[in-house]
Amino acid sequence: MATAGSWRVRREPHAAQEEAERILVLEESWRPWPRTRRTIRGCLECVKRQLFRVGDDWYFLFFLGVIMALISFAMDFTVSRLSNAHKWLYQELGDHLLLKYLSWTIYPIALSAFSTGFSQSITPHSGGSGIPELKTILTGVMLEEYLAIKNFGAKVVGLTCTLACGSTIFLGKVGPFVHLSSMIAAYLGKIRTSVVGEYENKSKQTEMLVAAAAVGVATVFGAPISGVLFSIEVMSSHFAVRDYWRGFFSATCGAFMFRLLAVFNSEQETITALFKTNFKIDFPFDLPETFFFMVLGGICGILSCAYLFCQRWLLGYVRRNTITAKLLATDKPIYSSLVALLLASITFPPSLGHFMASRLSMKEHLTSLFDNQTWGLLSQNASLARSPQVDPENLWLEWWEPSITIYGSLALFLVMKFWMLILATTMPMPAGYFMPLFVYGAAIGRLVGEVVAFLFPHGIQSDGVVNTITPGGYALAGAAAFSGSVTHTLSTALLAFEVTGQIAHILPVILAVLVANAIAQKFQPSFYDGTIIVKKLPYLPRIRSRHIGSYSVTTRQFMNTHFAVLAKGAGFEEVLQVVTSTDDLEYPIVESTESLMLVGMVQRTELVRYLQTHDEAKLSPQEPGEKPRCNGTLGDDCTIEPITLQLSPWTSLHQAHNLFELLNLQRVFVTSLGQVIGAVSRSEMKKAIEDLANPKTLK
Amino acid sequence: MATAGSWRVRREPHAAQEEAERILVLEESWRPWPRTRRTIRGCLECVKRQLFRVGDDWYFLFFLGVIMALISFAMDFTVSRLSNAHKWLYQELGDHLLLKYLSWTIYPIALSAFSTGFSQSITPHSGGSGIPELKTILTGVMLEEYLAIKNFGAKVVGLTCTLACGSTIFLGKVGPFVHLSSMIAAYLGKIRTSVVGEYENKSKQTEMLVAAAAVGVATVFGAPISGVLFSIEVMSSHFAVRDYWRGFFSATCGAFMFRLLAVFNSEQETITALFKTNFKIDFPFDLPETFFFMVLGGICGILSCAYLFCQRWLLGYVRRNTITAKLLATDKPIYSSLVALLLASITFPPSLGHFMASRLSMKEHLTSLFDNQTWGLLSQNASLARSPQVDPENLWLEWWEPSITIYGSLALFLVMKFWMLILATTMPMPAGYFMPLFVYGAAIGRLVGEVVAFLFPHGIQSDGVVNTITPGGYALAGAAAFSGSVTHTLSTALLAFEVTGQIAHILPVILAVLVANAIAQKFQPSFYDGTIIVKKLPYLPRIRSRHIGSYSVTTRQFMNTHFAVLAKGAGFEEVLQVVTSTDDLEYPIVESTESLMLVGMVQRTELVRYLQTHDEAKLSPQEPGEKPRCNGTLGDDCTIEPITLQLSPWTSLHQAHNLFELLNLQRVFVTSLGQVIGAVSRSEMKKAIEDLANPKTLK
Repeated sequence: MATAGSWRVRREPHAAQEEAERILVLEESWRPWPRTRRTIRGCLECVKRQLFRVGDDWYFLFFLGVIMALISFAMDFTVSRLSNAHKWLYQELGDHLLLKYLSWTIYPIALSAFSTGFSQSITPHSGGSGIPELKTILTGVMLEEYLAIKNFGAKVVGLTCTLACGSTIFLGKVGPFVHLSSMIAAYLGKIRTSVVGEYENKSKQTEMLVAAAAVGVATVFGAPISGVLFSIEVMSSHFAVRDYWRGFFSATCGAFMFRLLAVFNSEQETITALFKTNFKIDFPFDLPETFFFMVLGGICGILSCAYLFCQRWLLGYVRRNTITAKLLATDKPIYSSLVALLLASITFPPSLGHFMASRLSMKEHLTSLFDNQTWGLLSQNASLARSPQVDPENLWLEWWEPSITIYGSLALFLVMKFWMLILATTMPMPAGYFMPLFVYGAAIGRLVGEVVAFLFPHGIQSDGVVNTITPGGYALAGAAAFSGSVTHTLSTALLAFEVTGQIAHILPVILAVLVANAIAQKFQPSFYDGTIIVKKLPYLPRIRSRHIGSYSVTTRQFMNTHFAVLAKGAGFEEVLQVVTSTDDLEYPIVESTESLMLVGMVQRTELVRYLQTHDEAKLSPQEPGEKPRCNGTLGDDCTIEPITLQLSPWTSLHQAHNLFELLNLQRVFVTSLGQVIGAVSRSEMKKAIEDLANPKTLK
Repeated sequence: MATAGSWRVRREPHAAQEEAERILVLEESWRPWPRTRRTIRGCLECVKRQLFRVGDDWYFLFFLGVIMALISFAMDFTVSRLSNAHKWLYQELGDHLLLKYLSWTIYPIALSAFSTGFSQSITPHSGGSGIPELKTILTGVMLEEYLAIKNFGAKVVGLTCTLACGSTIFLGKVGPFVHLSSMIAAYLGKIRTSVVGEYENKSKQTEMLVAAAAVGVATVFGAPISGVLFSIEVMSSHFAVRDYWRGFFSATCGAFMFRLLAVFNSEQETITALFKTNFKIDFPFDLPETFFFMVLGGICGILSCAYLFCQRWLLGYVRRNTITAKLLATDKPIYSSLVALLLASITFPPSLGHFMASRLSMKEHLTSLFDNQTWGLLSQNASLARSPQVDPENLWLEWWEPSITIYGSLALFLVMKFWMLILATTMPMPAGYFMPLFVYGAAIGRLVGEVVAFLFPHGIQSDGVVNTITPGGYALAGAAAFSGSVTHTLSTALLAFEVTGQIAHILPVILAVLVANAIAQKFQPSFYDGTIIVKKLPYLPRIRSRHIGSYSVTTRQFMNTHFAVLAKGAGFEEVLQVVTSTDDLEYPIVESTESLMLVGMVQRTELVRYLQTHDEAKLSPQEPGEKPRCNGTLGDDCTIEPITLQLSPWTSLHQAHNLFELLNLQRVFVTSLGQVIGAVSRSEMKKAIEDLANPKTLK
């Protein structure tokens, strides 16, 4: 049975080590200044002791935050240079349309092909966002190699290229940053374990990973609080307040460093929000507007259901369809290039891109959508014309096209980006999918806000004072509601405030997010759960409260009664037979196969070792004087681990589900009067929960 | 063994009920419009089914939020009327000093005496904040009567009087609101259970209480997000994301309603923050100021340690000291009046109160401290004089006293309020202790901010642009840091932003809160834990990570081996002997006292019932023809509940601690090969953890 963690203690041989050091120092005493060197060595030892004290890993959390902030900043810097180069190239080509088209399309094609090829050639784990896999790891399933540091380079380089494609491909960086951060956390954890020893255990690793997820989000947006909350909501079903504090600390260090670097790089005068807005905070919105905010939440909820459904369908389709499946299996870069070509052709500014503000980067998209002016009013000014280059002071002009007005532009953007976003998620390169959702949601909100402003040009209450409507506030609510409902989180509301540096719209935004989430959670699994389902990763569904029958289901009804047991006195043949016929990771050990009294359990690796040594023993003839070796039974020669937790046949499904979720269990044995009578693993739990919808199948 | 919850299912006798209803309708058919009435009845049934669907309790969360918002608003309204009356009385008395003194002191004395007397006469549970007790309840310990609805009236009336004492007594309403909210949640839960039946279980109650705590905080400040986070941090060590969502929903409903009422009452034009500030958000603070924010955090941390230590000491002292102990035991109102007299005499405006801004209410205190102006600069204007009444436009004038300057006023306020706050916490009336901490912290921050502004009159960086320092930002950070470190929470940072309606200072405030918390958590238990310790409520300390030895401690070393067991075949005498000699709530049942094979457990109440029936059987002589009754053994006549979770002797202390915390266990049996060999309850856990500090006592 695997429980939350089993601790093994190994006393550090302090005395022996000191003795060895003393001798070494004596041997090397011909070197100059032995005394000084000894002092320095002592100081270093002291620092090491301070840094690597058991249970005290604040330093690591601090470093984790700072490292991630540096990576995030460096990546942003590189990406902005790369996309400036692209912009410059596109400008310099003048009016030659074909050259312009080529420069517009080839750049993202090349980058996405390189991103896919490079990352996939190093490791297949570096593609995609990484959050679904990390979520699986946090439930206690060890995905081998997923947190290996060699993914790191692949993911960093790949992600930089992906981001440099800019708003053509329209992908973000949150997911990969969570993955990067976890890799660094796992690596720091290994360093720590190598120094401190194995006092610390698996639960410590989980703590570190939880903090890492928070840091990942926080360093992308410079938003510590929502970083922590978002990672919690996405990653786990339960969490410890202690982990929350640790995540908070690490995320704050990361976010602070990230914003500090922006100041040092003279991007900003002081530490402020990433997408600073300028809403009027004295009268942010009128009371009846709350209704429109809730309508907006409803629209976002419905659209998110459609998005989730289509995304899951397409993800399955490209795996089923023979052509795309073949491309994805063998020529991933070609698939990426083809998708990039399609997306780039559509966003080409002289064609459809003209109506979709495609010259803006994603950051500019967001800044323009959060604009505090009402575009409907601005566009009534006749003397408007779009300049050949993007005007950073009037970003909204990119959305203004006289033939279809700003309402048309926004609507076209929403329609086209809907399937473009979904298509982009099928590209097998390192990429995040949160930021596009956030921008898309902001566009939904902007459209609704502009329509409301058009309907009520003088505000809603007209008792003397004119309080015009701020469509930017709707954009904020839309961004939070859409991204929140797709990912099934509420903390996006807070994220929207942290990135814009104001909190005046708090109540309407939260209402919109709640409405959107209520709709999305009712009808669709979240974006990350959907990916887990499509990728067939281990997954424990939650028990829906509408299944009343669930309260009467006990472990007896769904436990697995066909499983291999080994008697304490089993010899070579029995063990060999069991090991070859099953592939469990651990086996229950019983007193005898008749009594079935549970004694403990043994790891498969231990059994294999047992078989190997006994095999040798059988092959090499025993010498006469030698003490008989390796003829012992399993009970004599194997380490039998104690069982720390056992269920009874009357444990209810709810309780068992709770235990599995809380303790990250993988498999538990069921005993009755000491006899082992069954085993419950995640697959049995999953089946039992799925059977609830169809109660006839249950005994 | 008590586990997280045991579910019993009772099928609703639907068919029988419908039949009965049909007959009733037929019998009553002489009444007019039987068809219409039947339709209406059908509709009502349908509504009831919708509202009381098992597992679907969103409506209850909504009502909980709305009810608490109404109570909070009504209380604020009443309190403001009461304190206006006091203010008016004080003004009208003109220059007669004695009358003024009497009016100043008698009002709070009378109110606090009434508050104490009224609430204590109804129920002794209504005193204090209620958070420590609720925290204990959420660990699974049932404090009888604590959530009974009869406390409700006592607490509401008492709290209103307490708050009406205003800034003289300086107490808040957060804690009692959490208690009130939980009472309502428990009451709504009872209503629900009476309709739905007992499908739902103890864990459902806990879910409701967690949401209630969030609602309590949210409706006091109109701050939904930090309400949820604060309640989580204070209440639990682990929590489910599902609970967080539910809390969020309920708290948003509450906060929205609370702010909505303020608009309907024409206090505000639209929904905005409670203490709206006016900081410049373009350049909220300069980068080097971060250092001062961290220093401020350090100061708050040190002061909070001093506060916690002194508070715990005084709370113990008034219970030890014979005079105060006697007063508190028999004449609680007199104790309250004496304390109120002392506090009111000190804050009397013509005496020391003149230097402590004692004419301001607590809300005005906070508004003045968050002022965006620099008092140091304002006070250089010579033509300043305090008006006879508080000037709402220039609240800061109350802090301005030429003889000691604003720095002196703030310092005096801090010194005097330090012990006054602590003294006020010993008063046995319904009162919250969070708001005073928040105001005190804001004063610390203001003082530091004013000093920094004095030291750097032209801002810190002086490269051309003058960016002056905003002491209001420091007040914000101080409020968050001090209240956060006393309660060991980080979400006070978010609270500070939600109540002020801006978030520009987010990073420095979080840094200050982190520094303050790091200091406070290192040296002192939190305010609520301290109260739990002093009140000797059940409490499970956390395992400090610096105790390396904790990893090697197993259940075998600390389990209780002396506990009563009952054999399945035990008769009247054995049961009687066990029940009279011990007072456990549940007893393990074994196959036989020799084998000690654990079969299940039986509740004490069940045993008592068994004894009673068998007692009767012995007393009343059995009639010859009658079937022999009640001579059965325990196994025949008692309901033996199955054991759902058992530990093994090798379960580690960490794992056991985790299980106790996660599943709210009270007592678990330890089995080895099916034999029950020990029991672990919270007291054994507590002892084992305390022994870690003194490792010699462990075997």
